[in-house]
Amino acid sequence: MTILPAVNVDLLAAALERFLAEELRASHLAGTVIGLSGGVDSAVVAGLAARSLGGSRVAAFALPGPSSSDESLAHARLVADCFGLGLEVVSLAAAGEEVGRCLGASDDRMRRGNIMARLRMVALFDRARERSALVLGTSNKSEILLGYSTLFGDAAASVQPLGDVWKTHIFALARYLGVPAAVVDKPPTADLWPGQTDAGEMGFDYLDADPILAAHHERGMGRDALIAGGFDEALVDHVLLAYRRNRFKWRPTVVARVSASCVNVDRILPRNPER
Amino acid sequence: MTILPAVNVDLLAAALERFLAEELRASHLAGTVIGLSGGVDSAVVAGLAARSLGGSRVAAFALPGPSSSDESLAHARLVADCFGLGLEVVSLAAAGEEVGRCLGASDDRMRRGNIMARLRMVALFDRARERSALVLGTSNKSEILLGYSTLFGDAAASVQPLGDVWKTHIFALARYLGVPAAVVDKPPTADLWPGQTDAGEMGFDYLDADPILAAHHERGMGRDALIAGGFDEALVDHVLLAYRRNRFKWRPTVVARVSASCVNVDRILPRNPER
Repeated sequence: MTILPAVNVDLLAAALERFLAEELRASHLAGTVIGLSGGVDSAVVAGLAARSLGGSRVAAFALPGPSSSDESLAHARLVADCFGLGLEVVSLAAAGEEVGRCLGASDDRMRRGNIMARLRMVALFDRARERSALVLGTSNKSEILLGYSTLFGDAAASVQPLGDVWKTHIFALARYLGVPAAVVDKPPTADLWPGQTDAGEMGFDYLDADPILAAHHERGMGRDALIAGGFDEALVDHVLLAYRRNRFKWRPTVVARVSASCVNVDRILPRNPER
Repeated sequence: MTILPAVNVDLLAAALERFLAEELRASHLAGTVIGLSGGVDSAVVAGLAARSLGGSRVAAFALPGPSSSDESLAHARLVADCFGLGLEVVSLAAAGEEVGRCLGASDDRMRRGNIMARLRMVALFDRARERSALVLGTSNKSEILLGYSTLFGDAAASVQPLGDVWKTHIFALARYLGVPAAVVDKPPTADLWPGQTDAGEMGFDYLDADPILAAHHERGMGRDALIAGGFDEALVDHVLLAYRRNRFKWRPTVVARVSASCVNVDRILPRNPER
């Protein structure tokens, strides 16, 4: 049975802190904004950013919607306190209800969930513009490979410090950074409706999926090899289905190329040229 | 003085129609959705899509906000009628007001404009999910190079058929496709507040900017060479400032790479694998 490689957590944290400092410097902006969901991913990003940039350059927001739990907000406060960040609460409950009503989506929890994920993006980019700040994303590699995110919603950010970090290793980072146990130990949830958990929706835990994803995505092991290697057959099929089905999210927009100078297809130019 | 190369408009239209058909086929989805602003870009995309896919696979929406003009809606109807498309009007006025209120952005027309651009994205992706459809984007190359768009708003779509097409050539496509003259001949506007025009905000017309952008971006001509070549000095500075300042929008999200298997950095895998 293949397992996920161990992670050198202090080296990983140092690399990600360096990344945040470098990206902020190159952007010529004043600071960063982050949405704290009360979950472990945003807690880890907040911790890395606070260590790297100092608390004064990390503005934290809680953005509860119509069905967010009180526990999520309490956990967001725990995280902000833990890393010495102020926390501004901006309720998107009325906005979410009104957008759902305009679109006739009020009865469909999946559509409402996507609307809320995108409204949080709207709120964070609005706050970022107001403060000349980068939006810190909180997507992780497991979630990206499984496509468990809303395009142009929680997946949208200026930088994604954890976009190449397995969920398994995010738990290691969380313990290393001292994220409160209540946040680390609870089941991951997108908090889009009461009682929702990632595992309940996907049918498996990230910790079980990560070794399969790593073997498949990094080492090219196909279904049969994975099962011969000792992974549970039903789990393998479940994970590989999500991996295949949501792969379009890896490349959210396809541009029709008709010239030799199409942006972001042929040439990767500096994102932030010196002014 | 360098001018923009002429365009073979029937070849360009055929290439873009083929692109739309191929992308829809590869997506395994049922159709497409498009927001008609009443402007020339969305009119051209609607025309290309109607010719390529047939009207039954193109669902057109008008998405007026609190400050959209009646003329824009009338022009969206003209375009839909012209290409035989049904038009559903979904007013986002109340949603826009409520989101602006939640965020305390009601007094800032730029922030309100960004909110509306992103709410239109929310609406189009909601409709797309409901119908198992791709969202057709209407960004063009001039706008992308100048950064005249809202990230994760009007810039967000499943496909961008005009993303590599100069605005100058979009007018040629519009005449070729038979877009109504009222739409082709009016000044381009994002319609984010009354009386707004792209040229009024940017300080120059696309038709004047395109030859400068082409010379600079495609042929590497710097400021001095552009002015020596006969372009107006103030215009050159104006265009190059926007080109430099908004370049971060070409690469909206930067992922911290910490492995050899980071998505969309090292490997471009098929966006839509066969199932």
